[in-house]
Amino acid sequence: MVSNKKVLFKKVPTAYPVIGEHIEVIDTEFDLDAQLADGEFIIKTLVLSVDPYMRGRMRDASAKSYSPAFTLDQPMNGHAVAIVEKSNSSVYKVGDYLYGMGDFVNYAKMSEAEAKARGMEVRPDIPTSGLPITNYVGVLGMPGATAYVGLELVGKPKAGETIYVSAASGAVGQLVGQLAKTQGLRVVGSAGSDEKVAHLKDIGFDAAFNYKTEDTDAKLTEFCPDGVDIYFENVGGAMLETTINHMNLFGRIIACGMISQYNVGNELYGVRNLIQVVAKRLILQGFIVSDHPELDAPFREQVTKALVEGKFKYLDDVVDGIENTPEALIDVLQGKNFGKKAVRVADP
Amino acid sequence: MVSNKKVLFKKVPTAYPVIGEHIEVIDTEFDLDAQLADGEFIIKTLVLSVDPYMRGRMRDASAKSYSPAFTLDQPMNGHAVAIVEKSNSSVYKVGDYLYGMGDFVNYAKMSEAEAKARGMEVRPDIPTSGLPITNYVGVLGMPGATAYVGLELVGKPKAGETIYVSAASGAVGQLVGQLAKTQGLRVVGSAGSDEKVAHLKDIGFDAAFNYKTEDTDAKLTEFCPDGVDIYFENVGGAMLETTINHMNLFGRIIACGMISQYNVGNELYGVRNLIQVVAKRLILQGFIVSDHPELDAPFREQVTKALVEGKFKYLDDVVDGIENTPEALIDVLQGKNFGKKAVRVADP
Ligand SMILES: NC(=O)c1ccc[n+]([C@@H]2O[C@H](COP(=O)([O-])OP(=O)(O)OC[C@H]3O[C@@H](n4cnc5c(N)ncnc54)[C@H](OP(=O)(O)O)[C@@H]3O)[C@@H](O)[C@H]2O)c1
Ligand SMILES: NC(=O)c1ccc[n+]([C@@H]2O[C@H](COP(=O)([O-])OP(=O)(O)OC[C@H]3O[C@@H](n4cnc5c(N)ncnc54)[C@H](OP(=O)(O)O)[C@@H]3O)[C@@H](O)[C@H]2O)c1
Repeated sequence: MVSNKKVLFKKVPTAYPVIGEHIEVIDTEFDLDAQLADGEFIIKTLVLSVDPYMRGRMRDASAKSYSPAFTLDQPMNGHAVAIVEKSNSSVYKVGDYLYGMGDFVNYAKMSEAEAKARGMEVRPDIPTSGLPITNYVGVLGMPGATAYVGLELVGKPKAGETIYVSAASGAVGQLVGQLAKTQGLRVVGSAGSDEKVAHLKDIGFDAAFNYKTEDTDAKLTEFCPDGVDIYFENVGGAMLETTINHMNLFGRIIACGMISQYNVGNELYGVRNLIQVVAKRLILQGFIVSDHPELDAPFREQVTKALVEGKFKYLDDVVDGIENTPEALIDVLQGKNFGKKAVRVADP
Repeated sequence: MVSNKKVLFKKVPTAYPVIGEHIEVIDTEFDLDAQLADGEFIIKTLVLSVDPYMRGRMRDASAKSYSPAFTLDQPMNGHAVAIVEKSNSSVYKVGDYLYGMGDFVNYAKMSEAEAKARGMEVRPDIPTSGLPITNYVGVLGMPGATAYVGLELVGKPKAGETIYVSAASGAVGQLVGQLAKTQGLRVVGSAGSDEKVAHLKDIGFDAAFNYKTEDTDAKLTEFCPDGVDIYFENVGGAMLETTINHMNLFGRIIACGMISQYNVGNELYGVRNLIQVVAKRLILQGFIVSDHPELDAPFREQVTKALVEGKFKYLDDVVDGIENTPEALIDVLQGKNFGKKAVRVADP
């Protein structure tokens, strides 16, 4: 028997989740020597991703949305890298690295059908690329794909244009800026601390500012003298309203997320200047990365290459130990992460 | 000498324009026997269009927008049908019907270059189609083209989908509904009086309601049981917010206009549910009809045919006499028009 910690969803929060009330970590045991039926195998979680959208899954199961609600009293789940520890499957073999939707647990037994339903792919590149495993839930995982899909599908960038990225130092934003630079755009970002702003300049943003200590409107005027052609929207609310005032004709607003609105209950911000969408012929378009698996291959190829060659830089914010998952998630929702937040659960 | 009334822009309004203060009609004289230089000609205005966007042109000239500000103390202008009365031009001949941007005056002398700058086209179909001349500034003019362009370019309708049209009994809305019916959509509309609602049912809308006496949210639930795939947005503000709640996944919001926001000064309505744009992968896209002359030909062909064959019905709200132009415009801005508002200035 080995210890098997589980991160359970306990209660639907109305504002920020609270540890012990809405999320709880329990300690259970797992039998590594259990019998495996034909096709069954055991995985050990290596890295877990905590992401803003998980807040949306902490809802009443009767409310429909693009990703399923977490089940009360059951482990939460998300993108993870795991390794096959034991196996009675010819598809998932001992030592294989898997990427897909994993429960927030140390160990799990799985059938091939379940693994398929969770999108578990064998990823031989993970142990061989030389990149940190955390990269595979960040810059090379779902958040990275989000940057790529949003930019290509909605942004349609053209060299010489200006892009503004909010929450720019986060999991998605860091890559958005660097992808946009490779396409010849002027890249401007904002983030919530001077440290984050310094990082943005470090990874190639042309200009960046701290939206908590500076006036966004004034900084957009200063840093985007030719206006904003593409706004990569991670924040929503007042940030969206202010940015609309700076959009150029035929500008595109990539509606990726609106994190400022996730934990405010009914105190949602009212955006008052949508009339500019008509006069400026703007497009505001939402997307969900998982709708676009067709872009996975080109995304992975471009970004893996750039990372291996040292052309892209990407900051992870890693915490050790599955028991720290609840705090890691709340940190992301409160903007306390500095880079892509990930939980290192175990070494291979 | 003949009488030549002119409708002048006098002052920038902050809310609804007031006759005598912001718009004034003056009486001047015009010499029909004046010498005409080579290429010059004289037009007589037959029909003038008054449209909501003119409110946006009653602004300080320093504020840039898609259509130029009116010039203080000069005649306002807009889409018009005129006839050539005298001519020293081989392009614009006596008796020719013209459609283009005309000054709000009875008579004007023009050069070929000026006519070209105003988009004045000779339209031999106007006197021969058998359709009322007012149709050429309405269902077959700029508002009609707006319905067509918005639906094709942004709406991308598919048979079986549901479209909701606000300000549905107006110049644009009437045609939107009928075009959508030809494409096999379920068509739902709203308007500001029971008389307007009855007209919508008369012209083939599947369902319609009076948004002033009924609850929009409840009516959308009732009339769009499968949700809204396309929202043709003419109104903005609270109407937009309510409709977003009814949008289906991958829905399109055709941002054509937001008339509820044109005369409220700084009291703009804040839309609080834009977060649904992400989760539902919505597109909110603005457009301006004049960007899309390439759609003029197919639009005119389809709609002329449908009108001549009696398949489309379209209500004009015609007032006689150029001196009534200011009131006609204010009526449109206040929702007092019933159908496409046009001013009949003279008979051919
Ligand atoms: N559409 C999709 O398929 C998809 C997929 C993944 C992510 N997303 C969205 O993309 C956005 C970025 O996600 P991410 O994974 O890259 O997260 P992240 O940026 O790594 O972390 C969240 C960041 O949001 C910022 N933030 C801004 N306003 C905030 C507020 N009012 N409260 C708390 N934090 C605030 C914080 O940074 P500052 O210090 O700079 O404020 C925080 O660090 C989110 O909106 C997310 O929901 C969408
Ligand atoms: N994007 C473009 O290129 C383009 C081109 C032409 C027109 N447009 C826009 O399309 C929309 C419809 O134009 P239209 O020419 O067809 O006008 P219209 O519908 O013939 O007349 C305006 C109508 O708007 C309605 N309305 C709704 N809320 C209102 C409010 N708060 N105050 C006053 N009226 C209100 C009124 O009808 P109810 O009684 O039903 O309220 C009124 O009759 C407008 O927003 C216009 O700006 C855009």
